[in-house]
Amino acid sequence: MGFYHRSHTTKNMKELDIIDRIRKRSGKPGKGLKLGIGDDCAVIKAPADSFILWAADMLVEGTHFNLKSAGYRRVGRKAVAVNISDIAAMGGEPLYVTVSIGLPRGTKAGAVDALYDGIFGICKEYGLAVAGGDTNRSERLVIDVSILGSAKNKKILTRAGAAEGDLVLITGPVRDGKRCHLDFEPRLRESRTLSGRYRVSSMIDTSDGIALDMARICSGSGTGCVLYEDAIPLSAGLSLKDALYYGESFELLFTMPPSEAKKLFRDMKRKKECPFFVIGEITPPTKGRTLIRREGRKEKLKAEGFKHL
Amino acid sequence: MGFYHRSHTTKNMKELDIIDRIRKRSGKPGKGLKLGIGDDCAVIKAPADSFILWAADMLVEGTHFNLKSAGYRRVGRKAVAVNISDIAAMGGEPLYVTVSIGLPRGTKAGAVDALYDGIFGICKEYGLAVAGGDTNRSERLVIDVSILGSAKNKKILTRAGAAEGDLVLITGPVRDGKRCHLDFEPRLRESRTLSGRYRVSSMIDTSDGIALDMARICSGSGTGCVLYEDAIPLSAGLSLKDALYYGESFELLFTMPPSEAKKLFRDMKRKKECPFFVIGEITPPTKGRTLIRREGRKEKLKAEGFKHL
Repeated sequence: MGFYHRSHTTKNMKELDIIDRIRKRSGKPGKGLKLGIGDDCAVIKAPADSFILWAADMLVEGTHFNLKSAGYRRVGRKAVAVNISDIAAMGGEPLYVTVSIGLPRGTKAGAVDALYDGIFGICKEYGLAVAGGDTNRSERLVIDVSILGSAKNKKILTRAGAAEGDLVLITGPVRDGKRCHLDFEPRLRESRTLSGRYRVSSMIDTSDGIALDMARICSGSGTGCVLYEDAIPLSAGLSLKDALYYGESFELLFTMPPSEAKKLFRDMKRKKECPFFVIGEITPPTKGRTLIRREGRKEKLKAEGFKHL
Repeated sequence: MGFYHRSHTTKNMKELDIIDRIRKRSGKPGKGLKLGIGDDCAVIKAPADSFILWAADMLVEGTHFNLKSAGYRRVGRKAVAVNISDIAAMGGEPLYVTVSIGLPRGTKAGAVDALYDGIFGICKEYGLAVAGGDTNRSERLVIDVSILGSAKNKKILTRAGAAEGDLVLITGPVRDGKRCHLDFEPRLRESRTLSGRYRVSSMIDTSDGIALDMARICSGSGTGCVLYEDAIPLSAGLSLKDALYYGESFELLFTMPPSEAKKLFRDMKRKKECPFFVIGEITPPTKGRTLIRREGRKEKLKAEGFKHL
């Protein structure tokens, strides 16, 4: 740990060299990070009267990305971005990450630098500190990021809180996961807007597509839902099918009482762009999960999502 | 996250099935874990007036273990054990882990169960809760565990605190990393003994061998050291060379003033076995790092460790 464990070296670059480069770039600890890269553990002072949010997401070469077309920088960036999205989906503030990587033998120093360009770039953009991690040799590139964030107790938005009559909203227009999954901005700004001023009853990020992530909210909350095809805002070129069943768009899918939605849209009117869209409503569990097509036909929403095989 | 992200399924077992199995085994949240597996993040109430310790360690098939000879259960166990060792090396209490895994296509349900037998087995043994994680498909098995623990401010033992005249101690007899690296018990009991009652000036776990880990203490503390071959307690069959330069023994290597060591050994006298051994002392930085061989010859201790290539 601390980018310091076992010396599984790559042929062209030793772990200690890598650690040295990373440590130099990570700067001094701060913001509650008492001790960062370079010991057995990172040491953190937890924010007073807040809860800790903690997530981990792994990206594997060949499963989540094609290294040749993606490039190291974008892979590093995405590995952090998906974790920020997890914190945003709970209504929290991201604070620190640890980064564990497996690097193929013979990885060039320039490639490692590019990977960390992506990691440190997005960390800087979102005010995060890199607190530690682990470097190893692996046949194919693998990167696992663990993130810590914080949230006030009352502001934590889980999947279990939607109530009958709540509206279903999404940030958007929904991005094309096939095209933007390496370059998306996590919806942290939108999450801050929501958790700061409105009563949101449940929230999730659409990593697996609206259908499966909606199923998770319904399952967590013990409800059904109805979504309207007409109302789902699609970015240019994105098919409804991909929005529902492909995922990798990392929008925030959430629910709130109609009165809160009214307040939200009234406040948003002053801005030129509103990134929030009502796409349906929460129903009793006996109603299941339904999609109303443009022409009025009803379809069952399947609990199926992104399968990367 | 929350064992719930993208559905990268394996051929024989879908991610949602895996998650379901894991969730059933993980039990109810407790001990400050407000929300465990099954949402975008785990939610944790930080222990009051304590610091958070946070580490991550990744194991990669082919680099850290041979899956055929090791077996899934032992790999799962080790992935958690090395992280507990990181917390022990800081004088902290391990609390929660997240587990991110990459599973090869076609992994059988029995193999996944065995992997989690190892994970949950050691978690139970050491009182840890599994708070979340991520499952993915990967060409070869990869497992990255992130651990959270806690420690009182004054009890945190870093690598930077050794002072001239301190004695260098190690837990032992030093285990044979080549033979026991999959089955070792992290030295948590010994860490508790030390951090509870004695002034330890620095501590590290010997994941990379005594020589390299001693170099880290000396570098962190700005000191030199002298170690005595005669004094290093070796388990049966372990060579001095492997104890110094191979690692994977996960002993605690630490320093304390002689007066504290005296107190420690006086207290230990009452017990039948004492797991602590004085192996050297801290010197001024100008003296470098020296090993005194049995016959009196001086050798330079190299800052070299375990290279798993």
